[in-house]
Amino acid sequence: MIVTFGETMLRLSPPGHRRFLQADSFDCWYGGAESNCAVALAQMGTPARVVTVLPDNPLGQGCRNELRRWGVDVDFIRMDSSPGARLGLYFCENGVAQRPSQVVYDRANSSFSCSKPGDYDWNVILQDTKWFHFTGITPALGENLRAAVQKACQTAKELGVRISCDLNYRSALWSREEASLAMKEYLPYVDLLIANGGSAYDVLGMGPGFCSDQPLEDAASTAKEIAALYKVPRVAMTVRTSHSASRNGWQAILCEGKKVYISKSYELEIEERIGGGDSFAAGLLDGLYRGKDPQYCVELAAAVSCLKHTVPGDAHILSRAEAEGLIESDTIMPRR
Amino acid sequence: MIVTFGETMLRLSPPGHRRFLQADSFDCWYGGAESNCAVALAQMGTPARVVTVLPDNPLGQGCRNELRRWGVDVDFIRMDSSPGARLGLYFCENGVAQRPSQVVYDRANSSFSCSKPGDYDWNVILQDTKWFHFTGITPALGENLRAAVQKACQTAKELGVRISCDLNYRSALWSREEASLAMKEYLPYVDLLIANGGSAYDVLGMGPGFCSDQPLEDAASTAKEIAALYKVPRVAMTVRTSHSASRNGWQAILCEGKKVYISKSYELEIEERIGGGDSFAAGLLDGLYRGKDPQYCVELAAAVSCLKHTVPGDAHILSRAEAEGLIESDTIMPRR
Amino acid sequence: MIVTFGETMLRLSPPGHRRFLQADSFDCWYGGAESNCAVALAQMGTPARVVTVLPDNPLGQGCRNELRRWGVDVDFIRMDSSPGARLGLYFCENGVAQRPSQVVYDRANSSFSCSKPGDYDWNVILQDTKWFHFTGITPALGENLRAAVQKACQTAKELGVRISCDLNYRSALWSREEASLAMKEYLPYVDLLIANGGSAYDVLGMGPGFCSDQPLEDAASTAKEIAALYKVPRVAMTVRTSHSASRNGWQAILCEGKKVYISKSYELEIEERIGGGDSFAAGLLDGLYRGKDPQYCVELAAAVSCLKHTVPGDAHILSRAEAEGLIESDTIMPRR
Amino acid sequence: MIVTFGETMLRLSPPGHRRFLQADSFDCWYGGAESNCAVALAQMGTPARVVTVLPDNPLGQGCRNELRRWGVDVDFIRMDSSPGARLGLYFCENGVAQRPSQVVYDRANSSFSCSKPGDYDWNVILQDTKWFHFTGITPALGENLRAAVQKACQTAKELGVRISCDLNYRSALWSREEASLAMKEYLPYVDLLIANGGSAYDVLGMGPGFCSDQPLEDAASTAKEIAALYKVPRVAMTVRTSHSASRNGWQAILCEGKKVYISKSYELEIEERIGGGDSFAAGLLDGLYRGKDPQYCVELAAAVSCLKHTVPGDAHILSRAEAEGLIESDTIMPRR
Amino acid sequence: MIVTFGETMLRLSPPGHRRFLQADSFDCWYGGAESNCAVALAQMGTPARVVTVLPDNPLGQGCRNELRRWGVDVDFIRMDSSPGARLGLYFCENGVAQRPSQVVYDRANSSFSCSKPGDYDWNVILQDTKWFHFTGITPALGENLRAAVQKACQTAKELGVRISCDLNYRSALWSREEASLAMKEYLPYVDLLIANGGSAYDVLGMGPGFCSDQPLEDAASTAKEIAALYKVPRVAMTVRTSHSASRNGWQAILCEGKKVYISKSYELEIEERIGGGDSFAAGLLDGLYRGKDPQYCVELAAAVSCLKHTVPGDAHILSRAEAEGLIESDTIMPRR
Amino acid sequence: MIVTFGETMLRLSPPGHRRFLQADSFDCWYGGAESNCAVALAQMGTPARVVTVLPDNPLGQGCRNELRRWGVDVDFIRMDSSPGARLGLYFCENGVAQRPSQVVYDRANSSFSCSKPGDYDWNVILQDTKWFHFTGITPALGENLRAAVQKACQTAKELGVRISCDLNYRSALWSREEASLAMKEYLPYVDLLIANGGSAYDVLGMGPGFCSDQPLEDAASTAKEIAALYKVPRVAMTVRTSHSASRNGWQAILCEGKKVYISKSYELEIEERIGGGDSFAAGLLDGLYRGKDPQYCVELAAAVSCLKHTVPGDAHILSRAEAEGLIESDTIMPRR
Repeated sequence: MIVTFGETMLRLSPPGHRRFLQADSFDCWYGGAESNCAVALAQMGTPARVVTVLPDNPLGQGCRNELRRWGVDVDFIRMDSSPGARLGLYFCENGVAQRPSQVVYDRANSSFSCSKPGDYDWNVILQDTKWFHFTGITPALGENLRAAVQKACQTAKELGVRISCDLNYRSALWSREEASLAMKEYLPYVDLLIANGGSAYDVLGMGPGFCSDQPLEDAASTAKEIAALYKVPRVAMTVRTSHSASRNGWQAILCEGKKVYISKSYELEIEERIGGGDSFAAGLLDGLYRGKDPQYCVELAAAVSCLKHTVPGDAHILSRAEAEGLIESDTIMPRR
Repeated sequence: MIVTFGETMLRLSPPGHRRFLQADSFDCWYGGAESNCAVALAQMGTPARVVTVLPDNPLGQGCRNELRRWGVDVDFIRMDSSPGARLGLYFCENGVAQRPSQVVYDRANSSFSCSKPGDYDWNVILQDTKWFHFTGITPALGENLRAAVQKACQTAKELGVRISCDLNYRSALWSREEASLAMKEYLPYVDLLIANGGSAYDVLGMGPGFCSDQPLEDAASTAKEIAALYKVPRVAMTVRTSHSASRNGWQAILCEGKKVYISKSYELEIEERIGGGDSFAAGLLDGLYRGKDPQYCVELAAAVSCLKHTVPGDAHILSRAEAEGLIESDTIMPRR
Repeated sequence: MIVTFGETMLRLSPPGHRRFLQADSFDCWYGGAESNCAVALAQMGTPARVVTVLPDNPLGQGCRNELRRWGVDVDFIRMDSSPGARLGLYFCENGVAQRPSQVVYDRANSSFSCSKPGDYDWNVILQDTKWFHFTGITPALGENLRAAVQKACQTAKELGVRISCDLNYRSALWSREEASLAMKEYLPYVDLLIANGGSAYDVLGMGPGFCSDQPLEDAASTAKEIAALYKVPRVAMTVRTSHSASRNGWQAILCEGKKVYISKSYELEIEERIGGGDSFAAGLLDGLYRGKDPQYCVELAAAVSCLKHTVPGDAHILSRAEAEGLIESDTIMPRR
Repeated sequence: MIVTFGETMLRLSPPGHRRFLQADSFDCWYGGAESNCAVALAQMGTPARVVTVLPDNPLGQGCRNELRRWGVDVDFIRMDSSPGARLGLYFCENGVAQRPSQVVYDRANSSFSCSKPGDYDWNVILQDTKWFHFTGITPALGENLRAAVQKACQTAKELGVRISCDLNYRSALWSREEASLAMKEYLPYVDLLIANGGSAYDVLGMGPGFCSDQPLEDAASTAKEIAALYKVPRVAMTVRTSHSASRNGWQAILCEGKKVYISKSYELEIEERIGGGDSFAAGLLDGLYRGKDPQYCVELAAAVSCLKHTVPGDAHILSRAEAEGLIESDTIMPRR
Repeated sequence: MIVTFGETMLRLSPPGHRRFLQADSFDCWYGGAESNCAVALAQMGTPARVVTVLPDNPLGQGCRNELRRWGVDVDFIRMDSSPGARLGLYFCENGVAQRPSQVVYDRANSSFSCSKPGDYDWNVILQDTKWFHFTGITPALGENLRAAVQKACQTAKELGVRISCDLNYRSALWSREEASLAMKEYLPYVDLLIANGGSAYDVLGMGPGFCSDQPLEDAASTAKEIAALYKVPRVAMTVRTSHSASRNGWQAILCEGKKVYISKSYELEIEERIGGGDSFAAGLLDGLYRGKDPQYCVELAAAVSCLKHTVPGDAHILSRAEAEGLIESDTIMPRR
Repeated sequence: MIVTFGETMLRLSPPGHRRFLQADSFDCWYGGAESNCAVALAQMGTPARVVTVLPDNPLGQGCRNELRRWGVDVDFIRMDSSPGARLGLYFCENGVAQRPSQVVYDRANSSFSCSKPGDYDWNVILQDTKWFHFTGITPALGENLRAAVQKACQTAKELGVRISCDLNYRSALWSREEASLAMKEYLPYVDLLIANGGSAYDVLGMGPGFCSDQPLEDAASTAKEIAALYKVPRVAMTVRTSHSASRNGWQAILCEGKKVYISKSYELEIEERIGGGDSFAAGLLDGLYRGKDPQYCVELAAAVSCLKHTVPGDAHILSRAEAEGLIESDTIMPRR
């Protein structure tokens, strides 16, 4: 079992490429960085548990049901029936070509962000599990969650549960300084750190700070530096190249000690950008959980993530076999 | 010009008669008791101004645009660009037959509810206007808005602007005691009070307290008592009869002094319940604003409100001529 | 083969019960009184031909394709490729409860209404056919079509083709006086006249002039008077009773000489009002074409028309067996 | 845990009230008499398990996911990956008013109907469960399933698991004679038999054979006769009255020995007819499972079933509290 | 008249780029390799007849209506009203970028695949026609259809009707060996053989066996070899190049004796992949039917097929003029 | 205030990339070259007024409401309630790849095109405004509008209002000769002329006449020649390059006297082609209105227009800040 800890939100998006101001309906999806990862794992066949808090109203119940639908363990989702309990929301307008996606967050005071460290009994939650996964978004939600993550990491360490962390910096939630302070405290616990050029720079002050168009070599040396400086056994990075507006190059590296493993490179045509990074994490975890070698892991993660860009919605609805198929070949003929 | 003061929210509803738990998209509408009234007035040809605060993000801008689309004066809508500014939301599942509609409010900390009395310069807002309209929802949003309403009433009185108030009790927002205390303070200013059996009882402790199936005579005597006790020149009440699940009887009275004017009675087949009461208020105001006699006013209000039950969405998209047509006849043949 | 002569238009309707002012899409249907009748006949198994003119652009082609889809003979639809050729349009907002349907016609200068009497070679068109059907709408479109109908009637008479006419008065197209003048000229040719209380009064000045809520006996005596005065072998009338807003009583009579045949009575719950009268005509023609007795014919017509009120769109998509099933029983259990 | 045994199919329905011939898309739902019952139980809070076979392709996986979403135990759903494995389908056109719903079954050779008695290890499946539920549809699917039901009943008896059976006669699947023969073999095992006037007559030859409009007293005496003749501890019957086309009266009785318990009567306005009977069974089972008295059970079942007629789709998405709310009151005001 | 012989199925696809597991509705289309070709011909103005068997239920009737809508001759479509008659189905998830389309066939036991050679009276069907067209899918459906094709070819030969065959190998239906055996029996009758690199290799064992990215020269020599070895007067091949995920190069050749005619090359941006090959066949047939020279024919076929990739659905809804327009120019400005 | 003068139409488009012949609904948008420009200005923050005539029916009212929604001044839109008043329509099938968009105009006899010069009191309309904008479409609608534009230009000149004109040649409305004659009469008044290679050649006979793929240098010299010959202070041209089917290069120049300012070049991926040129005009006017330098103006216009290609519908729903953001950078990362 892999345990993820974070917020799941309701996402509301105008259909197609309509702008917010043109919407008279919203498509809805449920998602969040950590639960997206859990869904991806479950879809690929690796057991995954989501730890979070949801309001005990139809929106929160719908969110829990959706996670359950995709095969995620929802036993440690607490349904919050206190007055004022609310589900975190985000509104997302899908960008296209030169027009970037636009996000309006409405997640303040959500049931999850109001939760206390004492709400989570990590000894029970992590019992008989092998991995604990979180991203930088969870501690960004406030002191309480910062402490909850800390406690989770300590307990995981004690129980021999390995820990992965995706830096996932969100400037809307905290400053670079706050993020840096908090995340550096977790690094000693982390067995696998996931970043890209942007978050490595924003949170750790390393590398040149480009989120895209960073040369692969730079990413590799940044990863190696992070691994060395913070003694993180594995550091993975994705490298995005912006050939054109909605077409990107996509590649990934995994650094183990001084060794860097490099995935195939893909040309993305982006149907959905959200959840791409989360499924990258899932791909890595899926490989590591099953004890696969680093080259396989980074290839799987890159392929999984490449394919996620073709699936509408936050959740990764793809099998492991599909990703393995892509690694071997990129033909696109329908199978009849 | 008629001025309304209150919150406009984004409403999100699953399509058709789907339940929340079955939604994978939401139809969206903008509405609120007071702005629904303003839209109805503007659609009928009477100038109306919405006074409110909206976040200066695409959701708030969309709300303002929508009001502007329907011909409402939006000059005194303040766009709030403070951090954390948010639009009030409500999720509404449309009921059918024995299954009641279900509402999940998510309006706490909205830009409007966080506004301060000093944010409204009533001398300017009410300048050259003839009516000020609010409902019990606005003061239910907190101390600040309670004071703002107070200030608005005082200023209106000073400027010779007439005041109408729809009791509109919402148990989710405040207790009966709080409501009673606050609303009774406003009554001395009120030229037109609007209620139904439920709100008259909940807020003023008068009448038998049935929201529906109250005999017409009871409503009339409740109205007369309120008018006498609180010295309100006009008291209007709607009377709903629940023949069957989604078919109601609908009638209204208007009490002026000791005289009670009674409208035609309608059999509603409910396409949309939300906004029915708000358009009733609009019908009354539209008549009174134009100096019409009480019988015309109560007939117009009942007809307007009856028709609103056939229009999807919060806003009243109907002309005055359509309501007048209904008063004269209830034939339903298409006009070819 | 039964030949119908009239205009087929593109209908554009806001989805569901939305108002025009709320539309941001339109459902589209193709229809017209005469072609609706032809489609109904073809669906029931009686061969039917539509004679009309359509613009030779994608809208006109789509209209022809749609008629062909339903099995109608389209060999005598002329595709007009002259500059300015246009398809007649009508926008229809579906009413509900007390709110009547609203129609915005945009049919002026359509290819059909611009056609000349010489465009139709009735000797060829009517060759080997048994019935010619038209409604009052066709001559209402102008002098040319008035003459074309005249010519068609004469030729039909010469060829021994029987003639049916649905009065179908449209005040938007011509005055009662014009209609009266024109229609009375056709009556000598007519073997079957179809009317309701409204059109009988508007066009022929007979009966009390109510379109609905006319007592059955009145309809019967009106029909008998028309039959006697104008020497029409058969006169059929539909009788609608408005119990409530979107629920009507529905019954029909067929008068042959002095004998009046009365159908079962139905309680309509109206999903779609458009095309109800046209399928009534089709039911009659379907029975008469097959040489059935008057009681069967009027029952079939009433049942067919009752069922049409349940089918969205202008066209009658129902089999004869379904109507016959309704005549025998009105159970509504699903057949599993 | 309550175990249900039967087929879950993919249902494809034209949107709204469109006819099959007008469809250019199909709404899809997953359902089947037994799994509908299981979903209803899970939604009300009673643990339920679906035992079935689904093809191991995206359609079968989607079906399993949907059941899991609603909280049903899917551990004993076998995914069939044999060549030719297929999901049972049914196409359903929603009727309205006088036009009945129309169903096209396409369920032959489905993975479930091809399963063998040996595919089900009832000792494991029923271990630690309290009820076993099936309907007449399962044995109607062929010899193998007839035997599988037989085996399940025997095992349940041995394990002290109570058995409920809904007669659910489908003439498309077998003759009255075949049904009678098979069902009578199961009756000795049955603790709760569910029927209506139609199935009681078709399968057992008892009562007058009306599916609707049967007097309540008749239903009561039919139930008592069945209970006496077949020694079934409890017999429940639903009684439908067809006031009008899509409005029915709805009431239920539960016969225990010589005592008959009668529910409140409801006036249905039918949004969705499918699944009404299945949720009636679920209501009964939910009450009996929790050891409630017969009057409560029959009230719950009638209320649950009444409400199901308002929920689109095969599955019952309603809480127990909602049904209990309806028992106490039938007001339909939105709760704000 | 050109006669096509094969199965038409109902296709069900999740909307847009949703995955099967995310579908809650399916768009529906009717199609099949041979009828797609017939529709394309009819749209371009060449008379075409579909010979097939459909169940006499609403799905089969809908299929026949759809073909009729597009102007195809449906006189030789037999409506099968035997018990168990069913329409072949296929579910198709539209791929995008690196994610290939996914197809779930559910066509076993369809009315067409259960038909017998004696069901087709080819002397009548082919009377007064000029071409007979089939693809490898028809004989892949079983012995009976293999024999029916054989009989059709013989009769065509006797009547002087020319024969075209598209190899269209489907591994889900038969093995390469079976296909090879069957198809080689038909080759002596064939006047025009259509293939691509994949089917040429799979069925005839010729060429390098790539379905895409085959050099044009290879295709040309493969075509010449086939023409020579099997004495087929004309062999046409399409050549696809996979530049990127959903962008392909597209070109075609037509080999007559030793002469090879090469079309313009197109860069496809694929809106819809299904039906591309079928419209290629239609383009060739449309040219040959009208006696055009080989260069025109191959240009028309390539252009027609290129454009088909832009039209949603199986059917080719494009005029000949549009294809000819593309041959002359590839500008894409709207014509205002 | 910037005043625009022209027709606003209702646009009806099949959803997605469906063809007209496949439509069973139409998405609707309101637009026209001049009002698109006004909406774009208002969205960017520059006050804009639309001068036009609309029918006083729900379609015309909907059009006016939509313009009001986007913040356009609608005080000088005349609602025409004469009999026969109609809204101009156009049907637009969205092209994709090699299939061009297809437009069916149905704008003859619209209320606007029937308006007379005397209907416009330019002294009032233009009072206190700074710019008057029109395109070649307005005078193409007939003698009356030709005269109205003439009168508007004269009045603007007298009032010191600057004038901009977009040549916008429409061959469906008038011949090149007629256009040339009319437009050349307006040129002496024009302060800013907007063209592309196509319209410059069609209307003025200058340049090589390519609408796309004209070298930038050619556009520059054409612009300079026009400026010199017709003494137009500023001439702007857009230059489109057709790299591939739905991907174009896009760049613009602005010529002031002998100086030519060149914008950045963009690679368009076209979501919506309609309105691209109109927002280019708006970008220029927005810059010039605010007194910006030529380089800023041409950059803004190019960026605004590039972004418009990503927004569905005729109207430009984009802020100035978004365009300025694009000028500075073309990153497409979502802003979280």
